[in-house]
Amino acid sequence: MKINKDYLNLSQNYLFSEIASRVKAFQAENPDKDIIRLGIGDVTKPLVRPIMDALEKAVFEMGHKGTFRGYAPDKGYEFLRNAICESDYKSRGCDIDLDEIFVSDGAKSDCGNIQEIFDKDNIVAVTDPVYPVYSDTNIMAGRKIVYMPCTGENGFIPEIPDTKIDIIYLCFPNNPTGTVITKDELQKFVDYAAENDSVIIYDAAYEAYISDPAIPHSIYECEGAKDVAIELHSFSKNAGFTGLRLGYAVVPKSLVREGVSLNTLWARRHATKYNGAPYIVQRAGEAVYSPAGKVAVAQQVREYMENAALIRDSLTSMGYTVYGGVNAPYIWLKTPNDMSGWDFFDLLLKNAGIVGTPGEGFGNCGAGYFRLTAFGDARDTRLAMERIKTLQI
Amino acid sequence: MKINKDYLNLSQNYLFSEIASRVKAFQAENPDKDIIRLGIGDVTKPLVRPIMDALEKAVFEMGHKGTFRGYAPDKGYEFLRNAICESDYKSRGCDIDLDEIFVSDGAKSDCGNIQEIFDKDNIVAVTDPVYPVYSDTNIMAGRKIVYMPCTGENGFIPEIPDTKIDIIYLCFPNNPTGTVITKDELQKFVDYAAENDSVIIYDAAYEAYISDPAIPHSIYECEGAKDVAIELHSFSKNAGFTGLRLGYAVVPKSLVREGVSLNTLWARRHATKYNGAPYIVQRAGEAVYSPAGKVAVAQQVREYMENAALIRDSLTSMGYTVYGGVNAPYIWLKTPNDMSGWDFFDLLLKNAGIVGTPGEGFGNCGAGYFRLTAFGDARDTRLAMERIKTLQI
Repeated sequence: MKINKDYLNLSQNYLFSEIASRVKAFQAENPDKDIIRLGIGDVTKPLVRPIMDALEKAVFEMGHKGTFRGYAPDKGYEFLRNAICESDYKSRGCDIDLDEIFVSDGAKSDCGNIQEIFDKDNIVAVTDPVYPVYSDTNIMAGRKIVYMPCTGENGFIPEIPDTKIDIIYLCFPNNPTGTVITKDELQKFVDYAAENDSVIIYDAAYEAYISDPAIPHSIYECEGAKDVAIELHSFSKNAGFTGLRLGYAVVPKSLVREGVSLNTLWARRHATKYNGAPYIVQRAGEAVYSPAGKVAVAQQVREYMENAALIRDSLTSMGYTVYGGVNAPYIWLKTPNDMSGWDFFDLLLKNAGIVGTPGEGFGNCGAGYFRLTAFGDARDTRLAMERIKTLQI
Repeated sequence: MKINKDYLNLSQNYLFSEIASRVKAFQAENPDKDIIRLGIGDVTKPLVRPIMDALEKAVFEMGHKGTFRGYAPDKGYEFLRNAICESDYKSRGCDIDLDEIFVSDGAKSDCGNIQEIFDKDNIVAVTDPVYPVYSDTNIMAGRKIVYMPCTGENGFIPEIPDTKIDIIYLCFPNNPTGTVITKDELQKFVDYAAENDSVIIYDAAYEAYISDPAIPHSIYECEGAKDVAIELHSFSKNAGFTGLRLGYAVVPKSLVREGVSLNTLWARRHATKYNGAPYIVQRAGEAVYSPAGKVAVAQQVREYMENAALIRDSLTSMGYTVYGGVNAPYIWLKTPNDMSGWDFFDLLLKNAGIVGTPGEGFGNCGAGYFRLTAFGDARDTRLAMERIKTLQI
C-alpha cells in the first residue's frame, strides 16, 4: 500500500491550523491574557434576523412529517439557485443559467476540489502571496506550480503571464492583500486565457465588500469570461456563514476543453463525492437574497468596513505602510523594521495579545508583511489599535 | 489545458442521478400518478424531538453575540467527538482516541475523498455489487479496480483475495445486498490486510440496524484492526440526517504505511480542503448520543426494520427470492423471470408507481437483482407490497 507522496511536499501544517496551535499554546501558558483575534478571518457578528427567521422555519420543517427534507438535489435546491442567479448574475447583466450553479458547503471546499477535474500535467499559476488552499491542493495532486509575484511595486496585481499557463487562480478582492482589480485589468486575464486555452479559477468570496462601482463583482462581467472562467462564491463573509457552511461554484456550459464541457465533469464530481448542503442552511442562504436579508447583511458588511477603515487609519497614523482595507476586509501591512512576519506574529501575540497572520504563511513574497482582518468586534478592534500604539518596537 | 480523462471512464451519470432523472421524466408524463420511492434510500421520518431540541437551541445561539459560532475546529467539536468516542467505541471495548475521529458532512464525502491520501498506483478491491462511490472515485483517480464477486452462492460475502490487494472497501451491513458479516469472517479480512500491508476502508453506515449481538458494529472489534482499517460512519440512516449532513471517519494513528501515519495525511487533507460541519448540525449529532436521543433514534430504527420485515415477508410469500432485510435496511431480491434489473425498474415504475434500484447500477454481479429500502413511510411500504402483489409479470 503506497501513500500519496505528493503530500510530503506540503508544509507540515495547514497555515491556520499552525496559527491556532500557537495561540492555544500561548493561552495555556497565559490563561489570564485577553486575546484579540484578527487572524484567521472568522466573522464575529451573529446571524441577522431575516436569516435567523429562515433558519428557524426550516428547522421546524425538519421536525414534521410532510415538511421533513432528506437528500437535497445534486446541485442544490432551485429556490437558492434561482436567488443566486437573479441577484448575483442577472442583476449585473451576466447570463448564467441555473444548471451552471452548484451549491456547496463553502468556497474552501470548492477551491480545494475543483482541481480534480483537471489533468495532473497542467501548469498552475497562483499569486504569491496566496490563499494556501489553491497551492496546497495542487501540490497534493502533484502539479507544477508557477508563482506570480504580487508586491508593493505592482500594486499586488500579478503581471499577465509571459509563458503558457493552463490554470490560473485569481482572488479579488484579494485574500490576503486586500487588493481589488478593475474590470479592464481583469479583462486582460480573460483575454490571456482565451488566447492560451487556459482556465481561470476566480475566487469572488469577498465581492460583497466592493462599494466602488468601477470594480467588478463577478468575472462574468468581462467579455468572453464564460468560455474561460469558473467562479467561486462564499456566504461566509457577506452573511456570517463561517459556522453554517454554504457556498457555490459557477461552471459555465460553454467552458469546453478537449471537447468536454467542464460543467459536465464538475456535475459528475459533485454528484459522486458530495451529498448537498443541508436544507436548513440552503433556506438560510435564500434569505440572504430576500429584501430584508439584503438590507441586514449590507449593514453588517458596512460595520466590518468601519473596522477596516479604523485599522487602516490608525496604522497609517502610527507610520505603518498599509495596503487593502478599501473594498476589501483585509489589511496588509509592512512589518516595522523589516521584521519577519512570524517574528511580528509572536511580538503582537506576546506583547499585545493580538492574533494576526504572518505574510510568510501566504508565500515568499509575503515575507515582511502581515495580515489583519476587519471581522473582529468593533470594540476589540479599537482596543487592538490602542495596544499596537503603545508597543515598543 | 488538459482535463482529467479518467472521468471519461465513468458511466455517464452517477447511478442515483440517473434514477432521479428517469423518475422525473415519468412523473412529467404522468403527473397524476402517485409514486412510492423505495429507491435511493432516503429516510422519511422527521427528526426526533431530542435532536430537534438540540438543533433549535444551537440555532438560537447563532443569532446572539456571545454564543455565535464561526469556523469549527478542524476535526469537529470535542463535545461531538467525545460522544462518538464513548458511545460508538469505548462502550464496545474499542480503544479509539479523540484525535483519531474526524467529523465530516457525511459518509458519502468521506468515502469519496479518502482515496486521495493513497498513491495512484495501488490496486483497489471493491465488492460487486458495490455502492458506486467506492468504485467511481477510484476510477476518477485512475486506479485499477479488482471486483470481488458477491452472489447468492457465497452469501454475498466476498472471498478473501488470493492476490495482493492494496486497498479493500468493505461495507457491512451491506449496501446494496443487506448482507451482514460475523466477527470471525471480518477478522479474516483484517488478518489478510495485516499480512499484505493492505488498508481496509470499512463503511459502517448501517451499523445501527444490527440487532444480533454476534455481529460487530465496528471493525475495531476485530484484533489488530487499528493497524489496518479506516472506518466511516454516517448519521443519515440511524438518525435521519440525510438532509442535515453529518458523518465521521476514524483514522487510527497506528495505521502507518511507508513510515507515515495515515492519520497525519487525513488530518492535512481535512484541514486543507474542508471547513467543518455546521455547529448547529454537530449539536444535533451530539443529541443522537444523549439518553433521550438514543431511545428516540432506536425507536425510529425499529420502525424502519418493521418495513424491512414486511417487504421481506411479503415478497417471500409472493414467491420472490429475497436477501437482506435482517440487521440491515436493504432488501435485495432476484427479479422475476430473469428480467434485467433495469427492465424490472421500468416495469415497477410504470405499472406500480414504485421506485427501486436496479442491481446493474451496483455492478455486473447485480444483474438480475433489485434493491428496495426500508426507509419508506410504513403505509406507503404496505401499499407498495399490495401493488407488487397485483402485478402481472
